[in-house]
Amino acid sequence: MRITTTILETREQIREWKKAGCTIGLVPTMGFLHEGHGSLIERCRRENDRVVVSVFVNPTQFGPNEDLEDYPRDFAHDTALCESLGADLIFHPEPEEMYHDACAYVNIHTLSENLCGKTRPVHFQGVCTVVSKLFHIVEPDTAYFGQKDAQQLAIIKKMVADLNFDIRIVGCPIVREKDGLAKSSRNTYLNKEERKAALCLYRAIQQGQKVIAKGCSSDMVVQQMEKIICEELLARIDYISVTDAITLQPVEQVERDVLVAMAVYIGKTRLIDNFSYEVMP
Amino acid sequence: MRITTTILETREQIREWKKAGCTIGLVPTMGFLHEGHGSLIERCRRENDRVVVSVFVNPTQFGPNEDLEDYPRDFAHDTALCESLGADLIFHPEPEEMYHDACAYVNIHTLSENLCGKTRPVHFQGVCTVVSKLFHIVEPDTAYFGQKDAQQLAIIKKMVADLNFDIRIVGCPIVREKDGLAKSSRNTYLNKEERKAALCLYRAIQQGQKVIAKGCSSDMVVQQMEKIICEELLARIDYISVTDAITLQPVEQVERDVLVAMAVYIGKTRLIDNFSYEVMP
Repeated sequence: MRITTTILETREQIREWKKAGCTIGLVPTMGFLHEGHGSLIERCRRENDRVVVSVFVNPTQFGPNEDLEDYPRDFAHDTALCESLGADLIFHPEPEEMYHDACAYVNIHTLSENLCGKTRPVHFQGVCTVVSKLFHIVEPDTAYFGQKDAQQLAIIKKMVADLNFDIRIVGCPIVREKDGLAKSSRNTYLNKEERKAALCLYRAIQQGQKVIAKGCSSDMVVQQMEKIICEELLARIDYISVTDAITLQPVEQVERDVLVAMAVYIGKTRLIDNFSYEVMP
Repeated sequence: MRITTTILETREQIREWKKAGCTIGLVPTMGFLHEGHGSLIERCRRENDRVVVSVFVNPTQFGPNEDLEDYPRDFAHDTALCESLGADLIFHPEPEEMYHDACAYVNIHTLSENLCGKTRPVHFQGVCTVVSKLFHIVEPDTAYFGQKDAQQLAIIKKMVADLNFDIRIVGCPIVREKDGLAKSSRNTYLNKEERKAALCLYRAIQQGQKVIAKGCSSDMVVQQMEKIICEELLARIDYISVTDAITLQPVEQVERDVLVAMAVYIGKTRLIDNFSYEVMP
C-alpha cells in the first residue's frame, strides 16, 4: 500500500493505473477510521481494481466555533486498517497542499439549507468543494459514502448529477456498536456517562421506525422520537425531521420515500443518526 | 464531423476516443461563431487529436434584464465554420439537457466581484458552473478561451487551479475587425451609426497602451482612456479599470503585470475590450 501527500504524485499513480485499464474506487474520509469506514473500504475493495482512501481533516467544512482543532486523529491506526483491508493508496495531504489562496468553491441550493445546514451554515459548501477537488485528483469510477451522513450523501449525489461528474456514488449502511450507537469518530468525545446517554438516539430511531410503519404523520413520528430524547437529561435536540429522501425538503405525510434524520447534543458533543423509510407502491 | 445533443452520446464518443489514446481539445462557445472563435478552433486543431466545440447559449450566465432571448444564433453557419476548420464534434444541447432541477453550482470569490461582476452579479457563477459541467462531460486535456473575455479567462484559470481540474487552459489573443473593433457576437446589435461609434473602444485601448508604456499611475491611464470614450456621444462607460493580471484586484501603480479592462455601452449594447501590460523585470 502506498501513501501519498501531494496531488502531483497521487495523479501520477492514478494515471499509471488508468493506463493499465484499472477501475478506481475512492473512499473519502477525515481519518480516525472505525468499522463504518471499514465497511466502505471493504465494499470498495470488492468492486474495484484499485482502492484509494483519502484521509484529510478538511478545515473548510468546520465552522468557526466547531471542533476542527479537537477532531481526533490517529494516522498510524488509519494506515494499519487500510492496509489490512487491502487498500492500494492513502492520499493524506496537508491543508496547505489542498488550499492555496483558494477562491473557487462548489455549493448546492436547497439541500444544504435545512437539517444540519441550519446549525452548520458553511459545512456543506466545504464538503462539496473538497469532494469536488478529490474527485478531480483521483478521478474515481465509483466513490463510497456512509448513510450515517445522510444529508451529505444526498447532497453529493445531487452535486454529481447536476455538475455531470462521471462518477457512480454508492451509499453504505450505518454501522452500529453492539448496543446500537452509530459508529462515529466523534463518539470518542463522550465520557462514560455521556456514552450511556447517547443510546437515546438509537432508542428514538427504533421508536420512529415502529411508529412510521403504522402510517402516521411526520409530526407524530417526530413527537414520538422527541419524547424519548427528552427523557434523557444529558441530551438536547438540535433537530428531528422527516424529509423527502432525495430533495431533503420537509414532508407532512409519509407518502413517498423519506429520510428521518436527527442531530442531538449529548453534553457538548453533537451526534447525528437517521433512518430511511421506503413507502411500498 | 459529428453533432451531438445529449450528454450521454457525447460521453460515449469521448470515451471511444480516449480509449484509442486520442488527446481531446475543447472550445466552449455560445455559438454565432466569428473569426475570434475560429482562431480558438484553429489552435485547438493544431494541438489535439480530437477537437470538440460546444455551442450552447447558457441561460444561467444571463441576468434577468440581459439579452438571453435576443442573443444571436445561427447554428447552420456555426456548423459550416466548425466543419471547415476541421472540428470533430459539436456538442449542441438544449437547456433542458443541461439543467434539470439543478441545485449545485460553482463560483469564485473576489475575482468575480469587480469589473463585469459589478454590473452582472450572477454572470460568473453561471460561467463557472456551465464550464465545470462541460469539463466533466468532455474531459478535455486542454480548453481554449479568448482573451477578449479577460475576466472570464482569469476566473476559469483560477477555478481550474483551485478545484484541481486536470485540464490545461489556453488563452488566445483578441481578434479584431480591420478597423480595430474587437470581434464579438454582440456587434450584430449595432446599427450603422453605433458601429462607427464603437470604434472609440479601440481608440481608448490604443491610447491606454501608449500612456501605460510611459510608466504612469493607473488613475492617469484610466483618465486618458475615459477622455476618449467621453468624446463619443453614443458611448457610456460602465467601467475602465487597471487590475492585477491574475487576482483582478485594482492596482494604483503599474508595477507588475496588469490587465486594463473596460466595458462601454454603445446605445443599448454593452461591449468589452481590454489589453494586458507586462512590466519588464
